[in-house]
Amino acid sequence: MLEDCDFDFKIAIVGLGLIGASYAMALKKLNAKHIIGIDKNSETLNKALHMGIIDSAYDEPGKYLKDVDFVIIALYPNDTINFIKANIQNFKTNVIITDTSGVKEMVMNSVDSFLPQSMQFIGGHPMAGREYKGIEYADEDIFKGANYIITPSKRNKKSSIDFVANMAMKFGCKNVEYISPHEHDSMIAYTSQLPHAIATALMNQNIDKKYFELFIGGSFKDATRVAFINSKLWTELFTMNSDKLIDEIEKFKKSLDRIKDDIENNNTVDLEQFFKNSSTLRKKIN
Amino acid sequence: MLEDCDFDFKIAIVGLGLIGASYAMALKKLNAKHIIGIDKNSETLNKALHMGIIDSAYDEPGKYLKDVDFVIIALYPNDTINFIKANIQNFKTNVIITDTSGVKEMVMNSVDSFLPQSMQFIGGHPMAGREYKGIEYADEDIFKGANYIITPSKRNKKSSIDFVANMAMKFGCKNVEYISPHEHDSMIAYTSQLPHAIATALMNQNIDKKYFELFIGGSFKDATRVAFINSKLWTELFTMNSDKLIDEIEKFKKSLDRIKDDIENNNTVDLEQFFKNSSTLRKKIN
Repeated sequence: MLEDCDFDFKIAIVGLGLIGASYAMALKKLNAKHIIGIDKNSETLNKALHMGIIDSAYDEPGKYLKDVDFVIIALYPNDTINFIKANIQNFKTNVIITDTSGVKEMVMNSVDSFLPQSMQFIGGHPMAGREYKGIEYADEDIFKGANYIITPSKRNKKSSIDFVANMAMKFGCKNVEYISPHEHDSMIAYTSQLPHAIATALMNQNIDKKYFELFIGGSFKDATRVAFINSKLWTELFTMNSDKLIDEIEKFKKSLDRIKDDIENNNTVDLEQFFKNSSTLRKKIN
Repeated sequence: MLEDCDFDFKIAIVGLGLIGASYAMALKKLNAKHIIGIDKNSETLNKALHMGIIDSAYDEPGKYLKDVDFVIIALYPNDTINFIKANIQNFKTNVIITDTSGVKEMVMNSVDSFLPQSMQFIGGHPMAGREYKGIEYADEDIFKGANYIITPSKRNKKSSIDFVANMAMKFGCKNVEYISPHEHDSMIAYTSQLPHAIATALMNQNIDKKYFELFIGGSFKDATRVAFINSKLWTELFTMNSDKLIDEIEKFKKSLDRIKDDIENNNTVDLEQFFKNSSTLRKKIN
């Protein structure tokens, strides 16, 4: 039934924030038969019902999950693990569960350690989002043209992976990419977590603020844009990917030290080459 | 004559790139009597003549400078110093010279070491610019609403400082700020040079590029935008402000190490507080 991907079965979406509600909207567009919305916040549930993007609403898990074939969890990483753990007895025996969290290895290892063999957990990470959070900003178009990453584990059946992949393509994603949880987390440490670490560190740097505003220009604004950050979420993302992020921070400090050494030794030849390299690499990115 | 600021005298602009040509345009708008353009590149000079923003053109310095009351130098820092040094004999005895370079202490100390007492060098830094370089992108509007920083030295006469300040205000600058060369360079090291160091270091960081493009998101793009950089100019800016930039790099590494320590020790309380601080500070900037 699941394999033909016509969504003719019950789907539960856990967490109706920006991401969860966008899944609901996209699935409704594809005529999903019945979507159950689960959220702690009853106001959010009412909004989702009012928007017509869910068919029934629950503010806590329960036996109703026994009828649900497919569960999408759009919570913070720790809450994702905790939700699955707390509902093992509620899930249908052959349920497929997917998530959307930005760190994969720790979430998947944790879930796989207690998930019964009959159930499938497919790690997912849609490379989509918005600057704002909350159901108000939900939009099925966030998936359009995005890359959808699936991080398969050895336990995953091909049919279950294909089911999630098909959904992503029907949402309008450009590509589905299959990457190991480890590789995913290494790349994310460099391309997303490190820039967030840099932005917050630069913003918090201890300086004499006397003339600060006068001197703020485009380069400072760009470098600190994400210093306005969701503290709770990013604390989880950083601490749940600690080894890989520490590696990237150390690599970055070495890269920065090359500049420092060049300045200290007045090595203009090496510094110019360093800038030429960075220009060549940056030019390749839009 | 100079004090009434009606530009009824000869002005020379040295270097007709984006900045120099924008000065020429702004001064022409204010009916400057005669603008001499000086540039090594004869094509640039022809363009400037064709655009009607200069009245005469020279591709090298010479005796014609004897009639010039006001010289604006829009060259790289080292070329600024070298141009003044090479033309001491050519300048009018009571000439006023200003510059536009992004580092001030080393330029001013150097110029003041050989400039005759009768001549005035007023350090200037219009906080204006464009992403592109060259006369094609010149625009008198770059000054509109910008802050114009003047870094006075003890040798500067008030009347000469006021002359440059009046010009800036007539260009449409929002404010003229007077800051010591030392303070200017300290602030620039933090708000401009450090973000450029970060961007180039992050871009040059040694990583496995296999999935790189798939993972590039907004935070990485923002953090590396200025990694596409004018290598020669920024090599000068960095090495001519070495002590202050090294200070800022060290402060930044300490700030980044707080994140690293928090992750290593799983100190989620401190990390959340760090993110809350950065959010509060970033929110104050547009």
